Amino acid sequence: MTTPTYQVDFEPIGKRVDVLPDTTLLEAAQQAGLALASACGGVGNCGQCRVTTLQGELSPPTLDEEFILTELELQSGERLACSAAVCSDVKVHIPKSSLITEQRLQLGGEAVALTIDPLITAFQIDAPPPTIHDPRSDVQRIAAGLGAVDIQAEPAVVRQLTALARQEDWQLTAYLRHSELVGVAPAEAAPLGMAVDLGTTKVAASLIDLTTGAELAVTGALNPQIGYGEDVISRLTYARRHVDGARTLAQKIQTTLDELLGQLVTEAGVCRAQVADVCIVGNTAMTHLLLELPVQQLAVAPYVAASNAPIDVKARALGLTAAPGAYVHVLPGIGGFVGADHVAMILASGLDRPDRVALGVDIGTNTEIVLVKPGEALLTAASCASGPAFEGAHISDGMRAAAGAIEAVSLTDIGLSLKTVGDAPAVGLCGSGIIDSVAELRRWGLVNARGRFDRSHSRVRQGRHGSEFVLVPAEQSGSGREVVITQNDVNEIQLAKGAIRAGLEVLMEATNTPPETVEEVIIAGAFGSFIKVPSALDMGLLPNLPHAHYRQVGNAAIEGARLALLSRQTRIRARNLVNQTHYLELTTYPKFNRRFALGMLFPELNE
Amino acid sequence: MTTPTYQVDFEPIGKRVDVLPDTTLLEAAQQAGLALASACGGVGNCGQCRVTTLQGELSPPTLDEEFILTELELQSGERLACSAAVCSDVKVHIPKSSLITEQRLQLGGEAVALTIDPLITAFQIDAPPPTIHDPRSDVQRIAAGLGAVDIQAEPAVVRQLTALARQEDWQLTAYLRHSELVGVAPAEAAPLGMAVDLGTTKVAASLIDLTTGAELAVTGALNPQIGYGEDVISRLTYARRHVDGARTLAQKIQTTLDELLGQLVTEAGVCRAQVADVCIVGNTAMTHLLLELPVQQLAVAPYVAASNAPIDVKARALGLTAAPGAYVHVLPGIGGFVGADHVAMILASGLDRPDRVALGVDIGTNTEIVLVKPGEALLTAASCASGPAFEGAHISDGMRAAAGAIEAVSLTDIGLSLKTVGDAPAVGLCGSGIIDSVAELRRWGLVNARGRFDRSHSRVRQGRHGSEFVLVPAEQSGSGREVVITQNDVNEIQLAKGAIRAGLEVLMEATNTPPETVEEVIIAGAFGSFIKVPSALDMGLLPNLPHAHYRQVGNAAIEGARLALLSRQTRIRARNLVNQTHYLELTTYPKFNRRFALGMLFPELNE
Repeated sequence: MTTPTYQVDFEPIGKRVDVLPDTTLLEAAQQAGLALASACGGVGNCGQCRVTTLQGELSPPTLDEEFILTELELQSGERLACSAAVCSDVKVHIPKSSLITEQRLQLGGEAVALTIDPLITAFQIDAPPPTIHDPRSDVQRIAAGLGAVDIQAEPAVVRQLTALARQEDWQLTAYLRHSELVGVAPAEAAPLGMAVDLGTTKVAASLIDLTTGAELAVTGALNPQIGYGEDVISRLTYARRHVDGARTLAQKIQTTLDELLGQLVTEAGVCRAQVADVCIVGNTAMTHLLLELPVQQLAVAPYVAASNAPIDVKARALGLTAAPGAYVHVLPGIGGFVGADHVAMILASGLDRPDRVALGVDIGTNTEIVLVKPGEALLTAASCASGPAFEGAHISDGMRAAAGAIEAVSLTDIGLSLKTVGDAPAVGLCGSGIIDSVAELRRWGLVNARGRFDRSHSRVRQGRHGSEFVLVPAEQSGSGREVVITQNDVNEIQLAKGAIRAGLEVLMEATNTPPETVEEVIIAGAFGSFIKVPSALDMGLLPNLPHAHYRQVGNAAIEGARLALLSRQTRIRARNLVNQTHYLELTTYPKFNRRFALGMLFPELNE
Repeated sequence: MTTPTYQVDFEPIGKRVDVLPDTTLLEAAQQAGLALASACGGVGNCGQCRVTTLQGELSPPTLDEEFILTELELQSGERLACSAAVCSDVKVHIPKSSLITEQRLQLGGEAVALTIDPLITAFQIDAPPPTIHDPRSDVQRIAAGLGAVDIQAEPAVVRQLTALARQEDWQLTAYLRHSELVGVAPAEAAPLGMAVDLGTTKVAASLIDLTTGAELAVTGALNPQIGYGEDVISRLTYARRHVDGARTLAQKIQTTLDELLGQLVTEAGVCRAQVADVCIVGNTAMTHLLLELPVQQLAVAPYVAASNAPIDVKARALGLTAAPGAYVHVLPGIGGFVGADHVAMILASGLDRPDRVALGVDIGTNTEIVLVKPGEALLTAASCASGPAFEGAHISDGMRAAAGAIEAVSLTDIGLSLKTVGDAPAVGLCGSGIIDSVAELRRWGLVNARGRFDRSHSRVRQGRHGSEFVLVPAEQSGSGREVVITQNDVNEIQLAKGAIRAGLEVLMEATNTPPETVEEVIIAGAFGSFIKVPSALDMGLLPNLPHAHYRQVGNAAIEGARLALLSRQTRIRARNLVNQTHYLELTTYPKFNRRFALGMLFPELNE
């Protein structure tokens, strides 16, 4: 006699599995390769693994099920998969909400698998209204609806609850963060989150559905602190030197964030009260100015952050109108010059994987670099003062990547071909155009390895400020003036590339990492996503590794913030990687200056 | 061959124990009956079990010890008792800070043993200042000083830390609440807490040293909301009917609490920044008005609290200037009419012990009663609308317990003897005087069982409003007017006692508790501590149990708040007891009205 088995059909997925009697539906689903949500691990507490019986016989409802499911739900065949065991052939329906959602995020052309497991969980509440025989408090009713004995709710949340419960006749969605009720909304209102990349120049914001991971809206704005200083140092100076300077800068950016939140919810057609979580990344100065952390010590050597720890503050404390108890989570940073934005880039690009040697480069006025290699510290991070040349500053015809900016240059025997932003007549050069130009000048021998123009070359002329190369004659330009590259421009680029190249080499040397062992190089940052890697290699900005090793991930910082919204595990990863990172101070490294000087040289030509 | 043993001497306690080689000092201390602090359970993480070697040899320092103890400390013989094993006869010194403190609190004449284990723990920090080679953030330096990888610190706390660390050269006391840094103070500054009993009429506050449990100062004030209504209902009405009424009432009491905090720290000669925790108890209306919780639904049937859960809010959110990250903990309540003050009374009087049947009575305008009996619910609570008669209201010559109030009355064959507050000439009757008077009137047969004056009695006269008894003739009184007890006064007292007595009897009946099984009756509240139990028994206010069963505990509410400050376990007890309490609605209990009518009767006379 063989043990009988029963057949379980899962709809609407159409999976079938044969199981032994008394197998729970959760176990059956696991055998069928279906991942049912089960935060409690199958002990019957969380109520996430709801299914509906379509046919067949299951074990009688358990006490847990009677507690979690309403009588109506039980009558209509709803069960908890973890508690219902198979007593015949059965057919059950799995609602989408009971499946663990795995989502693939597009990032720099590569898809990242992510299990959606946000810190905020939404529960549907259907509570009985109070009566003289059931005078439990409003908060107790919600707790009971959640199947929880204790929940915490701040006064601001209780105020919202008391009004909304009566308005919605106790049919609510409760947003929970651990055991804290951070807000309520009408039934079936999805919990949302805002991800923010707080840049020195630009602020990008994205609205995410925390249950599906879908991006509902994106927006951006200039950082309004620009009016108080273009760069980080001038803003820190403003905050230090003016009475209430720090307060003023904080209020400016807080107001902008609240405006961006307003734009996002309007665009998505949702309510602010649904926004139950916010994740922010930014460089250390920006997060300090946002949170009004002290910056006195950040602006002078040894450039110490007041806090690099992850910080959770109530959104309302930063002037954000969201769910009344919502928090803002600012991701941890690594040091005064390696901030939460770099940590977010590492998270989004998966650089913290310990299975290979990799480099990460986030090019900007300050270039953050990181080397990943299993060892005493998994990650070694450093910061290079690369200056703003790659952003077009200190370059005679440099400009931001606006219309008319030359973004690609190619010099051939038959002449020069240019590509401009918006195909408008050229008016200047943006970062990628500068790199292309300098790479071409070097390829054609117009500048030598030391960066000096070859004055004997027919295309090199003498301008007012020394040798120069004309990219666009005045009559073809959009401004009526020539667009040129001067000796000084080349020198500025050499300084910038020297700093970055020296940083990368010191990082490898200090960690005993031969360059040929590096298997991957992540190029991040808005600028990094536009440069042509061959040009960057030809001019010696990046180490001479096979082109295929390089991966450009664009603005990965906001992706990191998005991951932190959608996944608790990502927040833990962030803490772990910060704790596993050694910060290397380059300027005091013995061989840095020599590396810097060498890094300024251009590679010899391959004849 | 016998195994050798080593002798361990503990100083300055003078305990000696013989142990096997490799026994840790913590184990040796346990064998000697000494309770060393060891939050981590002896795994070497918490650093609480520090001792100093005076003589003898111990095992070499472990990695944990090298991490937690500074080099200087190790050199001077400091060790962690959990990590250091005995390798010879040794003599060690146990500092007071490494001993678990057990303290006895006086409460209603009974001492309660309490293990001091506050939510706030103070750690001494001696961190190295930042250098270019050690640019860790300020928060990281504190975390490292605590031997912790991660701590949380809000911006407000980081601001305090950054300034104070540099002022105090990184010698600090850190106040930690779980893993959250709530404040810092100069080295060796003890963490303090404020306990508050927020009464409808009076607010009492006490400043406690959280390491020793010592009370450093006490103070009190009238609840300033009195200007907006004498009783709970009129204040709730004010809050509901006036624009910003709730805000106004909240601000009034918040300002008073901050003033009381100022008085306490001034009196104790300490700093506000040392106040790292606050515990508040009060009735449900008072805590709702303090926290600006909604009261609309609390003022009308079925009188539902917005929240009965324990609430933790930042002290600064309630306008209290304390340690920048300090919390206010409001204890949980049981129902709309049985608040956190009643829970605190239960905690302080130990009523929640499940080893006997007991009653608790907290007499006031609203009288809360609770019955403790192991069963489906450990506690059953109810609320009686006893009215303000016992507080002197609605009584013709009633008054508060101020100078000249008659507080005790005794009627004998030779006449009447009175005791007044401050021994001043009598001007009226306070609660205990009213109870005494009515009890004496009944003892001498001046009123019958139904409460009617015996008009034929020589001492009963007819006044303007019916029968009355003259306690003090006009010429002996402090006001020049007679002090009398009228028929109406007796009736008011009958209504009050009827409500309480009926509540107690219904409570016993509903829980199948024969009165003779009740082993203890706790009488709490300011009023409860002044009444004479024999008088209360004679007039039938309290059930006729042996006098020794009754225990008067005075204002136990603030003691409960103090216990919650000093002991995490007490906060857990509070939650547990609330979850184990069934609220019984008296007014809809079938036999309540009959019980109420019977309760109004006076006992028959024992001839």
